[in-house]
Amino acid sequence: MSSNKKSSVRIALLGCGTVGGGVLRLLEENRDAFAERVGARLEVVHVLVKDLKKPRVPECDASWLTDDPERVLGDPSVDLVLEVIGGEHPARDFVTRALRAKKSVVTANKFLMAHHGPELIRLAVDNGVDLAFEASVGGGIPVIRTLHDALASDRVLSLHGILNGTCNYILTQMRSHGAAFDVALAAAQRLGYAEAEPSLDVDGHDAAQKLVVTSMLAFGAQVNAAEMQVEGIRAVDQIDFTFADRFGYTIKHLAIGRDLGDRLSLRAHPALVPKSSVIANIDGVLNAVFIMGRALGPCLLVGRGAGDMPTAVSVVADTVDLARARNEGQPGLATRAIKLNQKSLESGDNLESRYYLRFDVKDSPGVLGVIATALGKHEVSIEHMVQDGRSEDGSETVPVLIITHTCREGRLRAALSSVAHESFMSSAPRFIRIEQV
Amino acid sequence: MSSNKKSSVRIALLGCGTVGGGVLRLLEENRDAFAERVGARLEVVHVLVKDLKKPRVPECDASWLTDDPERVLGDPSVDLVLEVIGGEHPARDFVTRALRAKKSVVTANKFLMAHHGPELIRLAVDNGVDLAFEASVGGGIPVIRTLHDALASDRVLSLHGILNGTCNYILTQMRSHGAAFDVALAAAQRLGYAEAEPSLDVDGHDAAQKLVVTSMLAFGAQVNAAEMQVEGIRAVDQIDFTFADRFGYTIKHLAIGRDLGDRLSLRAHPALVPKSSVIANIDGVLNAVFIMGRALGPCLLVGRGAGDMPTAVSVVADTVDLARARNEGQPGLATRAIKLNQKSLESGDNLESRYYLRFDVKDSPGVLGVIATALGKHEVSIEHMVQDGRSEDGSETVPVLIITHTCREGRLRAALSSVAHESFMSSAPRFIRIEQV
Repeated sequence: MSSNKKSSVRIALLGCGTVGGGVLRLLEENRDAFAERVGARLEVVHVLVKDLKKPRVPECDASWLTDDPERVLGDPSVDLVLEVIGGEHPARDFVTRALRAKKSVVTANKFLMAHHGPELIRLAVDNGVDLAFEASVGGGIPVIRTLHDALASDRVLSLHGILNGTCNYILTQMRSHGAAFDVALAAAQRLGYAEAEPSLDVDGHDAAQKLVVTSMLAFGAQVNAAEMQVEGIRAVDQIDFTFADRFGYTIKHLAIGRDLGDRLSLRAHPALVPKSSVIANIDGVLNAVFIMGRALGPCLLVGRGAGDMPTAVSVVADTVDLARARNEGQPGLATRAIKLNQKSLESGDNLESRYYLRFDVKDSPGVLGVIATALGKHEVSIEHMVQDGRSEDGSETVPVLIITHTCREGRLRAALSSVAHESFMSSAPRFIRIEQV
Repeated sequence: MSSNKKSSVRIALLGCGTVGGGVLRLLEENRDAFAERVGARLEVVHVLVKDLKKPRVPECDASWLTDDPERVLGDPSVDLVLEVIGGEHPARDFVTRALRAKKSVVTANKFLMAHHGPELIRLAVDNGVDLAFEASVGGGIPVIRTLHDALASDRVLSLHGILNGTCNYILTQMRSHGAAFDVALAAAQRLGYAEAEPSLDVDGHDAAQKLVVTSMLAFGAQVNAAEMQVEGIRAVDQIDFTFADRFGYTIKHLAIGRDLGDRLSLRAHPALVPKSSVIANIDGVLNAVFIMGRALGPCLLVGRGAGDMPTAVSVVADTVDLARARNEGQPGLATRAIKLNQKSLESGDNLESRYYLRFDVKDSPGVLGVIATALGKHEVSIEHMVQDGRSEDGSETVPVLIITHTCREGRLRAALSSVAHESFMSSAPRFIRIEQV
């Protein structure tokens, strides 16, 4: 046995909301099993909270509680720090200080990992400790673990997934119950699936952050998250579902990453996917990640992408791994295996895809001709064109729906710009990419 | 650093067919990355084969090859043994000897693990080494890893899955192309998805073996595999798909495990599943495992359940883990975490389910009455009853299809027995369980 072995691994928990409470419960419930797995007891010594008076789960020993970060981060006896505070401040500062003090860190913080992941990983490696972040992507789905361990010998060619449960819930309601976006959003808010201020979710940023974190493991890629192509679901209309359905599709919000060799294509946006595809049938708040490995072939992981207990399960799984590495005197080995290279992102204009287009027009003779001509001029060729309702006098707005053949997105955008200001256009033309997932 | 650290971990590969060749290729391609992960080089020192003259992959150094098991198993310098021979003999003997000689073992052998898993795990624990077997279940899908590591703090309530790619391919062909069973089987054999002697796959035994192995991790259960309820797909007829479809279902071959506290329900059989369920849409040779965790909620893993490279990826992932544990001087820790308790299996007669029934009858007045009366006598209540075609003179066989309400399987079997010998029955009545997956 190594001389580094200790009788206990000392843990500090930062934050004790519902996730933190779940972590304490799972650590307590599995105390003996974990001691055997790690080769040492897992001992919680500090729980850092903002409000000492707030009631906590029964598994939280009152003597652990403190509101003084110095007492926690300045304690040299702490081996592992679990961060379940979320957001940038003060989580970033706490994690940075913990790593500098040579403590391994488990974090559930996707914002932190998406915006400062590479810097924090480097800091962990420089200090010979580990940084684990399974819970920051996809709640309880073992995405990071699968990419890091199960696919250790493989190369990921591409991945796509439903990474935001709020968007998926809203789109599922719109499809299954014909709900309008606002109605579905309100329902999601009532059920606690969406925040009062929902833009992080419904504008696609949450999915984009998770894609950036996943891409670190999948592609060894360090990217500028701000350059990513991100679109939300506010512009998806009930009529889009009706027509998507008629063409054999439904609409999902997807995050997509593809290795292009020197560059990486990363995007998060709504997409038409074939109704019979597996991903089309991942409904409600479920998340899904589909990985295409060179040797492994396709691999799909589905589960609750958020929620307190699934997230706690992932935090605890990481905690056991890091405690074991710590006790074995080999902290940092797992994190050193993450190799990051700066990768530039492919311009969205270079994407080759098929598109679903919607033009809300004031109906009058010649409108279809103008649209078709504009598309043709920009080498966008039409596969289907549908104009259903016709108003008697041309005063009402009717939708013109088009499915294109494969074309370059730059050309499509130019074509749409060229008709956007025509007098018959009631609103800006919209497009949704079609993904053959 | 611990004093146990060595500059290399020495590996013996038993078997060098397509999986073994893939393992050698992946070890070579990732040599430097694995050395860093493990903290020591992974060095192949022996490759045991039956035929020294057979050509091998270029990554196989000729000096490694031997057809003498003694040279491999008797070499005290070997740390890790990778078994990719398959079947009972001589794999069981080789793995047993390797574990006794205190070498950690990675195996891709589902037969071995299903029939001797608990005994081999105990042997590994007794000798302070590890036994890893991810590749024995679901090829490249990280099922074992997810159950063992990601769900370390959770309790699995139930799992169900499509664990045999051959059955899934055949059923998919029957559904999508209206193929008869024999035609679909022949196609599977042509494509290499089914063996010339297909009974291991199509009679359900392969899925049953994988379920037994998965249940060790999911439920900590050691069961008598021979007592399991196993049915294959030979009796599934094209007409069953037609009627399943009419009622909103399709047919999949499922392996199902459920924790009943003191007992375990384990079964593998065809099942009607709702067409809109995710599992209904896992088609072709894909496998899927759906895990329901108490804290985690639902988690679904999908991928290629077999195939040389996916299996090799899993063997190599296990190899890296065990090499690391070995190099850290902590072999056996992961395997010791597998706790097995002898569990008895629930009798199939106690199952409560809805059923799809097919009676092939010589049409004559009163037949439906006899069938309905027999079911009623045994407290099997009918939800739908369909008799489509009618022959003019009662000489032809026509199918009577029934969907029951929930009932006990023992009662259903008694009811079916009571009509099986009626003169109007052209063949034995059949049933397929309906699973609300």
